[in-house]
Amino acid sequence: MGLETYWNEDPSDQLRVRQGFRLDEVDPRSTPGYDGDKHAAEASLAQGAEILAGLQEQLFAGSRMGGDPRRILLVLQAMDTAGKGGIVRHVMGAVDPQGVQFAAFKKPTEEELAHDFLWRIEKELPGPGIIGVFDRSHYEDVLIARVRELAPPEEIERRYDAINAFEAELAGSGVTIIKVMLHISMEEQKQRLMERLERPDKHWKFNPGDIDERLLAPMYREAYQLVFDRTTTPHAPWYVVPADRKWYARLAVQHLLIDALEAMNLDWPVADFDVEEQKARLEAS
Amino acid sequence: MGLETYWNEDPSDQLRVRQGFRLDEVDPRSTPGYDGDKHAAEASLAQGAEILAGLQEQLFAGSRMGGDPRRILLVLQAMDTAGKGGIVRHVMGAVDPQGVQFAAFKKPTEEELAHDFLWRIEKELPGPGIIGVFDRSHYEDVLIARVRELAPPEEIERRYDAINAFEAELAGSGVTIIKVMLHISMEEQKQRLMERLERPDKHWKFNPGDIDERLLAPMYREAYQLVFDRTTTPHAPWYVVPADRKWYARLAVQHLLIDALEAMNLDWPVADFDVEEQKARLEAS
Repeated sequence: MGLETYWNEDPSDQLRVRQGFRLDEVDPRSTPGYDGDKHAAEASLAQGAEILAGLQEQLFAGSRMGGDPRRILLVLQAMDTAGKGGIVRHVMGAVDPQGVQFAAFKKPTEEELAHDFLWRIEKELPGPGIIGVFDRSHYEDVLIARVRELAPPEEIERRYDAINAFEAELAGSGVTIIKVMLHISMEEQKQRLMERLERPDKHWKFNPGDIDERLLAPMYREAYQLVFDRTTTPHAPWYVVPADRKWYARLAVQHLLIDALEAMNLDWPVADFDVEEQKARLEAS
Repeated sequence: MGLETYWNEDPSDQLRVRQGFRLDEVDPRSTPGYDGDKHAAEASLAQGAEILAGLQEQLFAGSRMGGDPRRILLVLQAMDTAGKGGIVRHVMGAVDPQGVQFAAFKKPTEEELAHDFLWRIEKELPGPGIIGVFDRSHYEDVLIARVRELAPPEEIERRYDAINAFEAELAGSGVTIIKVMLHISMEEQKQRLMERLERPDKHWKFNPGDIDERLLAPMYREAYQLVFDRTTTPHAPWYVVPADRKWYARLAVQHLLIDALEAMNLDWPVADFDVEEQKARLEAS
């Protein structure tokens, strides 16, 4: 979108993973491109929500009349507590629920394990006009699968290529792919997990396994670095979003979505019927 | 919920279809149980949105920790333009998208027609902790199917019983079923269709077939009356919501959802781990 008041640089540029990118050089507390504070961010998010909702309606409209095949796939990857749920609630919550398809990928079932790792992903792809949101994704199959050795190294190797081929095919069929890694610091994660333990209304969000995963954080960072090195492509870019400040992460992801939609040059579809004729029919009815 | 300022009667009572109910006695412009105006309704809707979001989070939490199988199925039926989409946007939009599953049932595909009419419905049922919203439903198979004679009379007859058996089984497995018919007048429908024809940004919502359906409205009203007569059961009640005033219909459906959730006596699930032990582990990590 046009850069609003508080954006001094386009976050799509700032956050995009490019050759030579190093995850360990990203400060999770930083707010690249944004000059405002938490308070200003609230206003920016509300402003963006209206823009996003309007663009989404055009995307949806074009698929319903005129057969525009285009759609968006937003992939959210992160360590626990990084704020995937908050993005869904506060960014996607502003959009007509009919135009959003949400899928959370947990530990694969027996049936899913019996198929190729992309099998369950393909079943959840958004249709034309829809914004699909993946809470975790096929990247778990090269992240936790690598860290916890759930597959042999040669299979993990194969998967990077399979993912690139898969995403190239999606992009070719009209899917704009936005891959986001929310990046939080160890300190911030500790605080957020502690809050879940201290508040009985948050206990359900906690799992002792979250701490097991936390202990493996250095290995996950390595696995993420490999993901960026191997699966950053022009048609399916990665964005690393500093996420210690929830308000920044939400604003940045909202901005990525708006940018993607604006790049589609959407417009209202042209009626495929004779408007005056239908007015006359309606008048007579 | 506790009756707020402007509700003088519980709409769940007022709108519920009971023995002897006659659709043609319902005034689509009326606002049963609600004393406020459009302006007051905005405040009531915002107030209800917070209550609804909180209850939904408890429903979701209970399914994630503790294995509570309960869920909600909201069935929305109506003539075109009655406001199903607005309900989804303005009522369900206030709820965490992760806890809502939306399904729109259009003209059945070849594959769907090759199966029993409930086959495609079963595939879209919400899982535990989820609020499922059906934009049209299995009731189309006794509404448009009857009016347009898409199935022989004896098959239509069979379907009422099949629906009752199906819904009884759902209710038995923890699904709270709320069936809503949004009821608009012919005059109001004409205005809303005309608006779609007059505004190029609304053309995509119009279909010449909408007028064909409109011409059959008296037959649809009969078919709806039969639906109420045959499929109103204690475990799957019907509510007829006057819908000429959009703000009333949204408020009423929000209220039905809140009532259903409150009747579940939800609470935050109890941790299935030792909280103090996990705090110590986290502290040391």
